[in-house]
Amino acid sequence: MPKVLWKPGTMIYPVPAVLVSCGTKQDGFNIITIAWTGTLCTDPPLCYISVRPERCSHAIISRHKEFVINLTTERLARATDWCGVKSGREFDKFNEMKLTPLKASKVKAPLIAESPLNIECRVTDIRPMGSHDMFIAEVVAVHADELLINPATGAFKLSHSRPMCFLHGHYFGLGHMIGKFGFSVRKKKK
Amino acid sequence: MPKVLWKPGTMIYPVPAVLVSCGTKQDGFNIITIAWTGTLCTDPPLCYISVRPERCSHAIISRHKEFVINLTTERLARATDWCGVKSGREFDKFNEMKLTPLKASKVKAPLIAESPLNIECRVTDIRPMGSHDMFIAEVVAVHADELLINPATGAFKLSHSRPMCFLHGHYFGLGHMIGKFGFSVRKKKK
Repeated sequence: MPKVLWKPGTMIYPVPAVLVSCGTKQDGFNIITIAWTGTLCTDPPLCYISVRPERCSHAIISRHKEFVINLTTERLARATDWCGVKSGREFDKFNEMKLTPLKASKVKAPLIAESPLNIECRVTDIRPMGSHDMFIAEVVAVHADELLINPATGAFKLSHSRPMCFLHGHYFGLGHMIGKFGFSVRKKKK
Repeated sequence: MPKVLWKPGTMIYPVPAVLVSCGTKQDGFNIITIAWTGTLCTDPPLCYISVRPERCSHAIISRHKEFVINLTTERLARATDWCGVKSGREFDKFNEMKLTPLKASKVKAPLIAESPLNIECRVTDIRPMGSHDMFIAEVVAVHADELLINPATGAFKLSHSRPMCFLHGHYFGLGHMIGKFGFSVRKKKK
């Protein structure tokens, strides 16, 4: 396997492409698409989003210290791409993309109804990194689409929402399930 | 779309499941599987991995301040799962999983030859978060599998490596390509 040496760059893929909603009803809501996001800690549940200071949502989130991470699906692909390219200074993104803001439980930023899973976040730290500032946030509530929960077992099947991921400039759907965590050491049933 | 309110938890998915290699030839190499990883900043290129302090690799990376992020594929699924479950205190993971350590260009930690893309990282900060410590790192070099580069155009097709992602306890392959970044605003050719 011959390797080609490249200059340093950020090449961790596949990553999520989430819709981050922010703002308040009074100030106006906005949405920004974020791929530089992830979990920092399981307990307490901490996550981050990295945002360029010139983005409209950067000022909104810096002001209110709250946002919602809305997971995306193949059906939300166009809205996800569009909200990453366009600016809230020019468009009401909820209106343009026909997305529905829902009241959150702990923060003033809205949930996006069409997303299968909404993660309410409260900013605990803002760290300038260079081109992007990292917003470290605590998860304060999670909302899941009831249709993805098996009423008999309570099992949540996020894969049934047809999630989407982002890989080096392209959006992809998910393919087949390869295995469950721990499959490599699980004993086979006789 | 009725929503069910859950208690706070880390539910950002799909995420990468990368093989992080660490150590030195003299001290011994190790591998740990990490899903809590991502890009923090594009310029300079900064990323992170979050690791539980009780993991063997935590001590190794804390000591040497270097690691390599190796992207994973469907073919690496079993090794990825196994390296996340087992401990370097008990196993030589390279040997057990028949993975090949390659010399990196800037760090002492090895590249994993079988990975399509290797990201050499130097730790700039360690931040305790709770169950996990966040290692913030600068990307110092990137190695790409030459077979994924079109010799005529130079285009790199990471998707040809059959990348894998992790979604709420399960590994998935990638499915079909939905669109390129910016597809929602691209003018159609006449």
